[in-house]
Amino acid sequence: MIDISKLSTEPPKDWEEEVGAEKTKSYLKEINKLHNIFIAENSKSMLIVLQGMDASGKDSTIKKVIEAMNPNGLNIQSFKKPTEIEMAHDFLWRIHQVTPEKGTVTVFNRSHYEDVLIQRVHQWVDEDTIHKRFKHINHFEQLLQDSGTVILKFFLHISPEEQLRRLDERQVNPQKFWKHHPSDYEERKYFDNYMKCYEDVLNKCNDIPWHIIPADSKKYKSFLIAKTILETLEIMDLKYPPLVQ
Amino acid sequence: MIDISKLSTEPPKDWEEEVGAEKTKSYLKEINKLHNIFIAENSKSMLIVLQGMDASGKDSTIKKVIEAMNPNGLNIQSFKKPTEIEMAHDFLWRIHQVTPEKGTVTVFNRSHYEDVLIQRVHQWVDEDTIHKRFKHINHFEQLLQDSGTVILKFFLHISPEEQLRRLDERQVNPQKFWKHHPSDYEERKYFDNYMKCYEDVLNKCNDIPWHIIPADSKKYKSFLIAKTILETLEIMDLKYPPLVQ
Repeated sequence: MIDISKLSTEPPKDWEEEVGAEKTKSYLKEINKLHNIFIAENSKSMLIVLQGMDASGKDSTIKKVIEAMNPNGLNIQSFKKPTEIEMAHDFLWRIHQVTPEKGTVTVFNRSHYEDVLIQRVHQWVDEDTIHKRFKHINHFEQLLQDSGTVILKFFLHISPEEQLRRLDERQVNPQKFWKHHPSDYEERKYFDNYMKCYEDVLNKCNDIPWHIIPADSKKYKSFLIAKTILETLEIMDLKYPPLVQ
Repeated sequence: MIDISKLSTEPPKDWEEEVGAEKTKSYLKEINKLHNIFIAENSKSMLIVLQGMDASGKDSTIKKVIEAMNPNGLNIQSFKKPTEIEMAHDFLWRIHQVTPEKGTVTVFNRSHYEDVLIQRVHQWVDEDTIHKRFKHINHFEQLLQDSGTVILKFFLHISPEEQLRRLDERQVNPQKFWKHHPSDYEERKYFDNYMKCYEDVLNKCNDIPWHIIPADSKKYKSFLIAKTILETLEIMDLKYPPLVQ
C-alpha cells in the first residue's frame, strides 16, 4: 500500500543539478532518435498520462521533455471541463476517442483520472460511482495495453509550499500572468483532500503502474520523466522497417 | 450453458400469424408513445444490438420495428469492414464513439461482436486475442450500463435452409438485386463454424443477457423484438418532465 505522506516531493539527497541536467539533455537526444524509429515502425502506440496538482509542472513537462519528440507522431490532449455532449456519455467516452493510433505518442495533460479526483473532492459524484470508475479505468487501460498501447502514467508530486510559491510567481512574472486564476487559490484549500484521493488512485489504479515523480525541483522532474520515457522506448526494440520494393 | 443446436429458429407451435401481427402493430404504437417520453426525459440512453447471419433480418427489423421510433432520438449505426484508421486502434474504439447519448436510442446493425465472429471464423486473430476480447466486451458493456445505458442484445437465429431461400430470392426479386453479393454464398460455407462462434458469444458475453430470436418467420421475429423493446421501455418508468419556468 502506498502512503502518500511518506512520498518525498524533493530530489534525493545525492542529486546534483548540473550533472543531472546534462544527463537530461542526452536522454532527450536519444528519445528523439527512438521516437523517429517508433513513427517509422508504425506498429505500436504510446500513451503518456500527466497528473498532478495545479502548478505541479505538467505544461512544463510537455515544453521541456515531450518537446524532444517529432510532432509528426505526437498528439497532446488537454482535458478541461466536460462539454454538454461529453456529459451525456460515460466518463471514458471523450477519453477513448483520442487514444493514440499506431505510430503515435499521445500525451494526456490531465486525464480520465480527473473523474476520480476533482469530481470526488467536490463530491459531484457519489462514492459508489467513484469505486466503479476505478474498476472501469483499470479495464479500459487493460484494453489499450492488450491492443499494443504502452501506457506511462506520471504523478507529479509537489508540496503545498512549492505550489504556493509557483502560484504567487504567476502574479509577479508578466510572462506568467496568463496562468494566474484566483480560483487556484480556492482549490488549494482542498490540498489534503486531493492527496487522499490521489493516494487512493495510486493504490487502486496501479495495474498499469504509476511513476511517482518528486516535482518540487523542475530539473529533477524533467530528468526522471525523460529517463523513464527513454528506458521505455529502449525496451520496445524499435527498428526501421526494411525496404519494400 | 446454451447449446445453439437446441435453439429453434422457428416460431412456437401455437404462434398464430394474424393474431401476432395485430399485437405487433399495437406494440409499435406503444413504443412510439414511450420513445417520445424517453426523448423528453433526456436522462437515459438505450443501445440495441442486432446480430445474426446474412439475411437473418437485421435490416428488416430496423425497417419494420425500429421504424416506430421518433427519428429525433434515434441513431442507426452499421459497422462494415474497419477503415485503416479504425484498424490502428483497439477494436472498441470505433464502437465507443457512437454509443448513445442521453435521450437517444442507438441501434447497432452488426457490432463489436463481429470482432469475435467473422474475425474468429476466418482466423484473422488468434484465440488468445478472442478470449481477451470477450472480457473487454463484458467490461465495456458494464461501463455503458453503469452510465445509464440500457442495452438490448438480439441474436436473430435463422436456419441455413431459410438463409439459402432468402439469398436465392435476392437474385429473383428486382427490388432485392442490390442486396445480392456472390460472396454471401462463399461465406455460407462457414455456417456451422459461425454457429459455434455464436454459441461461445451467447455463453461468454451474457453478463448483459442476449435475447435469442427465432428468425425463420419475419413476422414472429418482429413480434418478439417489438415485445421485448416495449417491455424494456415500460419498466423504465418514463415521465414527461415538469414545466420549468
